[in-house]
Amino acid sequence: MTFFHKDDRAGTVVDRLGRLGEISDEPGVLTRTFLSDAMAIANAQVEAWMRDAGLEVDIDRWGNLIGRLRSPQPSARTLLLGSHLDTVRNAGRYDGPLGVLLALAACEELRRDDVILPFHLDVIGFSDEEGVRFHSAYLGSKAIAGLITAEDIHLRDEGGAPLGEVVGGSEGLPHARYAPGELLGYVEAHIEQGPVLEAAGLALGVVTAIAAQSRYTAIFTGLAGHAGTTPMNLRRDALTGASEFISLVERIAGETEGLVATVGQIKVEPNISNVIAQKVSLSLDVRHAQSSSVAAVVGRLGQEATLLADRRRLSFSLVKIQSSEAVDCDPSLTTRLAQAVEKQQERAPHLLSGAGHDGVILSRLAPIAMLFVRCRAGLSHHPDEHVEPEDISLALRALVTFIRELA
Amino acid sequence: MTFFHKDDRAGTVVDRLGRLGEISDEPGVLTRTFLSDAMAIANAQVEAWMRDAGLEVDIDRWGNLIGRLRSPQPSARTLLLGSHLDTVRNAGRYDGPLGVLLALAACEELRRDDVILPFHLDVIGFSDEEGVRFHSAYLGSKAIAGLITAEDIHLRDEGGAPLGEVVGGSEGLPHARYAPGELLGYVEAHIEQGPVLEAAGLALGVVTAIAAQSRYTAIFTGLAGHAGTTPMNLRRDALTGASEFISLVERIAGETEGLVATVGQIKVEPNISNVIAQKVSLSLDVRHAQSSSVAAVVGRLGQEATLLADRRRLSFSLVKIQSSEAVDCDPSLTTRLAQAVEKQQERAPHLLSGAGHDGVILSRLAPIAMLFVRCRAGLSHHPDEHVEPEDISLALRALVTFIRELA
Repeated sequence: MTFFHKDDRAGTVVDRLGRLGEISDEPGVLTRTFLSDAMAIANAQVEAWMRDAGLEVDIDRWGNLIGRLRSPQPSARTLLLGSHLDTVRNAGRYDGPLGVLLALAACEELRRDDVILPFHLDVIGFSDEEGVRFHSAYLGSKAIAGLITAEDIHLRDEGGAPLGEVVGGSEGLPHARYAPGELLGYVEAHIEQGPVLEAAGLALGVVTAIAAQSRYTAIFTGLAGHAGTTPMNLRRDALTGASEFISLVERIAGETEGLVATVGQIKVEPNISNVIAQKVSLSLDVRHAQSSSVAAVVGRLGQEATLLADRRRLSFSLVKIQSSEAVDCDPSLTTRLAQAVEKQQERAPHLLSGAGHDGVILSRLAPIAMLFVRCRAGLSHHPDEHVEPEDISLALRALVTFIRELA
Repeated sequence: MTFFHKDDRAGTVVDRLGRLGEISDEPGVLTRTFLSDAMAIANAQVEAWMRDAGLEVDIDRWGNLIGRLRSPQPSARTLLLGSHLDTVRNAGRYDGPLGVLLALAACEELRRDDVILPFHLDVIGFSDEEGVRFHSAYLGSKAIAGLITAEDIHLRDEGGAPLGEVVGGSEGLPHARYAPGELLGYVEAHIEQGPVLEAAGLALGVVTAIAAQSRYTAIFTGLAGHAGTTPMNLRRDALTGASEFISLVERIAGETEGLVATVGQIKVEPNISNVIAQKVSLSLDVRHAQSSSVAAVVGRLGQEATLLADRRRLSFSLVKIQSSEAVDCDPSLTTRLAQAVEKQQERAPHLLSGAGHDGVILSRLAPIAMLFVRCRAGLSHHPDEHVEPEDISLALRALVTFIRELA
């Protein structure tokens, strides 16, 4: 085991983030997807660092990498720390790997300081959180939690390969890696991916809940027509209807504290400058700490959109793509995490996570807690994603403090 | 020359429209573009029909087909009738060819009835009105009118071929085919491409003017952000801004009688459901019988859009793509055409042409008039474009009446 000076550990994390950021499925940009060659190389690299740190390492057939800092107490329970090692296409280097490498660095500090833990400390790098390859998120954590379904197994990637074959055949659905009650908790450090900590001038925050999220496709259908020859009053323009809907989404979202609603994607047919739009499809993404608030806003939007479509002689439909309930973080673990944060900075802001995380799945198996780390301009899923080394240092100290206090 | 019974001529036009509708650059759909192989085949077919009808035929190197029913008076002036034989991509069969074939059928009726005209009757099939190949409309009529510019010559098609080479080299810019004063007028029959005649329950109308048209690109730029983690009040969403603009376009257009304004095309970046839009580009198309009304509406939209962009912390720009002045039809020719229409139906509605036509160019060379023919549901630029045979028959009778009265 290599010896590192205490003050160098955050620097090591930064260095390792840079090295993982070079391991990609695509030249020139960072893209690392479920069970790709780049993913195997990244796993092998992190495995080497784990072994150097004295961890026992296992990689399951779903590509999840687990390193264990074993407690001398054989019947000890396990604290699971980590995040994911896969990325979106053209990603930044922090979303995911930061949480894995902070957990590993914490193990290194604990070993260096000869801390004997009354629990095993497992560091996990999930193989799929972003869902790029199979358009289905959380495949890594679902495998760990024994939540992969028969339906999942039949998903196909862009090349047509079924998930079941990609993970190596007919061993049936994976069982949960941990028995009920075996885990003390799952704790994940992750970049905030939003601007709230930056606006507050603080490096760290704790997460109270992962937001409920509903995704829909809204479709307005009217009648195409010549832009020069169809009088305004005879038009059935799908795009003016869709625009009124987008304004409605913005207005109604603003009426519920903490709720966010977004139309980010739009498809217009035929999308020609001199033809009135026949059909417009819009994405609708609504999130809030309470599932009921999401449902209420979606319901209201559906009603108002039906009225505006009738008034404009358009047809309207709202098709559900995905819906997930809000997931609460464990109050006890979160309080301990907040106390560890408060030793690094004046206060520990409590945030809602608008983005989904592996904790959504792990919450079915264990109490969860999350540490958010400030990122520049709230930017994520972008090569310019950035976290200051000082903030990584604070996050590492908070994580080590949390583990030591829990011990 | 084949003999046709009088009552069969409209049927022949319908039959010929069907045959031309089969001559396409692309299998399965109708697409016929400037100087393509399909265009040459279509020209050869119409040329054969023209020769059968006793017309003298010429095809110029720009692909314009001209058939002349020569007057016995050698010093006679010329009445030019016709339309264009090119089409948009995935076109209907009436837009363009209807006007050429009606003019040809009128010649056939006049010859059959041994009408001696005091003017030459030229039937023209322009080779490019839609501008598909070089993204520049009216190449055919511009060549006839001597209005091709040195700039036009350097346009390139998708394959990179310069227009100058495509039309066969270095003979310089084409001169006008007709001397000043040589043309009595240019009269074009064309489908309405709008719903006004259908709403009025009438087959035919005459055109008072071809609308002024301005085309712009409006661009809103904000800041991308995560749809789940960026609070509503911290957003700089380019798509909500663009939507407010689209509603503004609709509202302001409705305040000016007869004005139409359309956003038909939209491009969102990055156009992902869980990312707030960074940049939205919109097409803006504004038309009216008075050029000044178009300019006033565009000016007001620019001002209001700047205000809304400021309020939303977006940047905004409005880039002119194209602008054309309104073109008036000749009152005297139009009155004669209206009188001919009134012999076929109870009244002759006077319409503004919101679409551009070859008459825009020909108006530089001659007085122009246009006959509009009802089309089903106002639909055009679409394979379902349709004109009832009865309406084609009425149009033919109106056209023949007009020519005979003019003689």
